[in-house]
Parts: sequence; structure tokens; C-alpha cells
Amino acid sequence: MKALVYTGVETLAYRDFDDPKPDQGDTLVKIDSVGICGSDMHAYLGHDERRPAPLILGHEGAGITSDGRKVTINPLVTDPNSVASRSGRENLCPSRQIISMPPREGAFADYVAIPERNLVEVPDHVSLEQAALAEPIAVSWHAARLALAALHPADERRAHVIGGGAIGLAAALSLRAMGLTDVTLSEPNEVRAAYLRDTCDIRIDNNPASGITLIVDAVGYAATRAMASALVSPGGVIMHIGLGEADGGFDIRRITLQEITVIGTYTYTAQDFKDTCAAMFSGQLGALDWVETRPLSEGATAFADIRAGYVSAPKLILKP
Amino acid sequence: MKALVYTGVETLAYRDFDDPKPDQGDTLVKIDSVGICGSDMHAYLGHDERRPAPLILGHEGAGITSDGRKVTINPLVTDPNSVASRSGRENLCPSRQIISMPPREGAFADYVAIPERNLVEVPDHVSLEQAALAEPIAVSWHAARLALAALHPADERRAHVIGGGAIGLAAALSLRAMGLTDVTLSEPNEVRAAYLRDTCDIRIDNNPASGITLIVDAVGYAATRAMASALVSPGGVIMHIGLGEADGGFDIRRITLQEITVIGTYTYTAQDFKDTCAAMFSGQLGALDWVETRPLSEGATAFADIRAGYVSAPKLILKP
Repeated sequence: MKALVYTGVETLAYRDFDDPKPDQGDTLVKIDSVGICGSDMHAYLGHDERRPAPLILGHEGAGITSDGRKVTINPLVTDPNSVASRSGRENLCPSRQIISMPPREGAFADYVAIPERNLVEVPDHVSLEQAALAEPIAVSWHAARLALAALHPADERRAHVIGGGAIGLAAALSLRAMGLTDVTLSEPNEVRAAYLRDTCDIRIDNNPASGITLIVDAVGYAATRAMASALVSPGGVIMHIGLGEADGGFDIRRITLQEITVIGTYTYTAQDFKDTCAAMFSGQLGALDWVETRPLSEGATAFADIRAGYVSAPKLILKP
Repeated sequence: MKALVYTGVETLAYRDFDDPKPDQGDTLVKIDSVGICGSDMHAYLGHDERRPAPLILGHEGAGITSDGRKVTINPLVTDPNSVASRSGRENLCPSRQIISMPPREGAFADYVAIPERNLVEVPDHVSLEQAALAEPIAVSWHAARLALAALHPADERRAHVIGGGAIGLAAALSLRAMGLTDVTLSEPNEVRAAYLRDTCDIRIDNNPASGITLIVDAVGYAATRAMASALVSPGGVIMHIGLGEADGGFDIRRITLQEITVIGTYTYTAQDFKDTCAAMFSGQLGALDWVETRPLSEGATAFADIRAGYVSAPKLILKP
């Protein structure tokens, strides 16, 4: 098959690669659409020691099974019998794997092998480009669900999302789908901010007043954690999704004196993934049209363009 | 009256001071016993800009009212009509005050003025030395309550407390009173560790294995936050009580990838304070005999001895 292979720092090669060999219980999916994630970019820049070259990146895939079903892929492969999985927290399973990280190749390729239980069927009225958004939206859906459970029942439900990439946008959409009416988002890139406002009906506020009960940091740098620490109300919640930078930023003194809860969040449970798909398919998360598509064969240029800030859509999808 | 007055960095003077002038609704309490808190030590060392000299420190007081009632004092003075107070979170009240911080003088003195609603009556079988422990224990009781509410229902209830001062000890005792049977505590000071083991029946473990669902950081330094980050299990909870050091220590990458909840916690609600007193008075928190007493007139030496590490009891109580 053909694949876009990460071969070294800032180097991607579109080339022949061995077809995946499905394990027992695995299904082979012919990839139709696969999104580029911030973590793919992180690996491409050589910043993720969990993803050494050579490797096929990409974990936001949708496509067609050999028996003709339209599917979107939950890329998190876990042991259904672990204590974490049996308590409905597959994302905490100690043997968790994700496609695009050894030993599993990713979805920037013609085919990917994945357990049958990881597939969600996509109805006729949803395109495979839209279906490829299930993975990043599920990350934010999960974070939104945990955040609302952690908020004190007496607190008003107001949220501010830091960062207008796909994760930040999906957090805002998920919180609105869960009933919040007062959700704002900050995004310093003016082109991206205008896109979110005009295409996705997002309320942009790059200078919000402090005292907001829920802050979602969908970036994960020291500067965004500092912003989150300053904006959150006493007794409020900070959801920390991003992996931008490992150290610094949280105002630990304020977090202690004002009794703030910080929740780190990674991926989603199997149920969250299914619930996200159901919300997408029923229209609760809007038009899902905030994508730009490119051929997989031009993936190297796509990565370079994202890095250079040339892409205004929150999600760039590659088509094998 | 006589008072122990903080007059400048590492300087305390036992001297005459104006009697407190009770506001409307305030009661005058003749102090019998008042504990020295880590935050008093912090102020004494000149590290707390909220407590400028000259000031009477001390907020862990118990004594006798002018009409002869034995009382222990909740030192947190809040507005009962604030949104936070009306939702039962007085500790988040924006106008909160605490005795020992301007505009309220503290309890290292013959008398303190305090609203009547802040007093809890002490039964005959409880001494005023024991009753003076209500405040630090309430801090830990509150933290334990929040922590158990945040733990995932499927997680086993295992806890490790970092730090064997009064707050750490009280956290261990509170967690045991709330039903946890597996509670360990780490304390590098060998004399203190031996005291906790022999006098308070605490299980000391200075090298616990990681994978513990609940970690209480009762110290609040970068090193203890790093220890908490490493010890906590995936999906687990870190309670952060201490104000030792403002920056650093949390492993934000692990907190994110392993979905860990960090909760900052400060003081207690009015109900927590009452619940703590009830648990103390009924014997659920043990003998409450882990104190050493000194005359208030020798307070300066007491502070110096704590700083030098000469005090093995977790709480030193001064007697006016």
C-alpha cells in the first residue's frame, strides 16, 4: 500500500509500505479520510519520544471495511478485561495502545488494522470527512463531561475555552450540546478566530474577565495554564487537555487558596466515543464543516503549511 | 491585655496590647489554648505578605466566654449572605477574613473578639488543649471529604499522606474516621515519624510504591508535589493543602496523560468545622494527645525551637 511515513524530524515521505497484517479480531479498514492532530505535528517536529521514526502517524481515521460498511475508528486499543476497562475507563487501561504509536502503525495510509469493537458505523447522511472528526471531538466531549461532573452544583455553568484548534472548538461545541449557553473561546490567530466566529458560530473573546467557573485549556503551554489559573473563579474547574509543554504555568498558590480543581484529561472512554458519534450524527454538534481536505500524497506540504500558520480551518483532513 | 506580638522578621515580643474591641455580634473569648500553625511560622519568617508586622498571630484558639462557656473558635469570618456562603462554601466567600490577618488580630493573646456564630461549645470531657486542635483538624477533614467525593466510585480507597505535621496527621486520622483502612504517611524527620507511629498509631512509609488512588500533599513544596505526581494512580486524586512554595513540582504531562485530578484546598466550611468538632468530641479522631504545651510568655522560644526542629509533637500549644 501507499503511506505517508514519518522518517525523521520534519520529514514525511509518501511511499510504499507493507500492508497491515490484521491480528485475530482485527478488521482491515480502507481509509477514506484522516485528520492531522496536534500530536501528529508534535511527533513530526521530533518532540514525542513515544513516536520514533520510521512510523506511520495519524489516528483520526474513517473509511470502508472489506464488507462495505462506512465506519469511523476509535484508535485507542485497550484490554477489555483490565480493571480500568471494566469500570468504563478504557483510557486508563495500563496496556492501552493507540494507532500511530508503536507497535501500531497509523492511518496516514491506504489501510489500517483495528479491532472490530473499535469501529462505529456511520449513517448515510454523514460524510467520511465529517466522520473523521469523531476522534478529536471525543477528546473534548470526554473533557466536557468530566468538567461538568466536577463543577459544584451551586456554581453557574459558564465556560471559557483557551485555543481554537479542533480540540478547543470541539470543547466549545460539546459544552453547548451539553446545555451550556455561556461559552466563549480565545484564539490569538486572527484568521482562525474569524473562521470560528463566521463558520462555527463561536463567541470569540480574547480578553475575558476573570471569575469563570470552567476553563478548558486546549493548548497546554505554560502561558495558557497561567491564563487558566487567572481566569477561573474560586471553587472552579480547569480542564487541562493539551500536551504542548510539560512544565510551569499553574498558579499553585491561587489554586490552593481559592480551592480550584485541575483535571488532566486524555482521550475518552469507549462510551464517550460512541456518545460523541451519536451527538455528531444527530446534528447536536453542528454542521461539522470546519475542515479542509488535501490528498495524502501531498501530506508533507500539508504539515509544513499547518506549521507555518497557513491553514485557517481547525482541521486538515488527508485523503488517501 | 498581654499578647505575643509579631514585630518583624523572626521577632516576637510578649507585651501589653490594646484589648480587642468587639464589633456588634462579636463575643470576647478569654484564650486558654492556642496552637502554632505552619502559616504562623511562615509569617514569623517574613514570608507572608498578607501578615505584615506588627500583628498578633495565632488562629487555633479555644477558651472561655464572658458568660463561662468552654468554646473552640472557627477563625474564618465570612459574610453569611455571600453567594459562596449561601451555597455552604464559606471558605470561598470573597470577603473572608481570618483572625491573625488584618483587620483581625489573632489569638496569641489574653483575649480575642469573634462573631458568636463562629463558636462551638466544648463538652466537659474534652480539654481546651484538645479543643484548640479543631481548626487544623478541620482543614484536613475538609480536604479528606473533598478527596473522597472526587475519587472514581470504582477505585479502591487507598491513601498516602505526605508530611507528618498536624495537617498531615489530621488528614490521616480524618481519612480513617471516614472509613479508609489503608492509610500511610511519609515523614522524613525520624523523631517526628517515631512519635506518630508510637503515639498516634500511624503507619509510616517513607518509600511507598506508586499506584495509590489518593495522595494528600500536606506540605506544599515542589519536591512534595513531584512525589505526589509520581505516587498517584492513573485516574487518582491529589489533594494539595500546603502553601510551602508557590511554584513547580507537578508532573503536568503525567497528570494529563493519566487523567489525574488535583484539588487545591483551603480551610473548611462552617459545617466542616462543626462536623470536625463532633468527630473529635465523640472520639472518632483518637486521643488528641499529640500536643506539647508552653506558656504564651515563652512564645518566642517556642517558635525558635519549632524552626530548629526540636519539637517532636505535631502541635505546640501556647497557654496565655
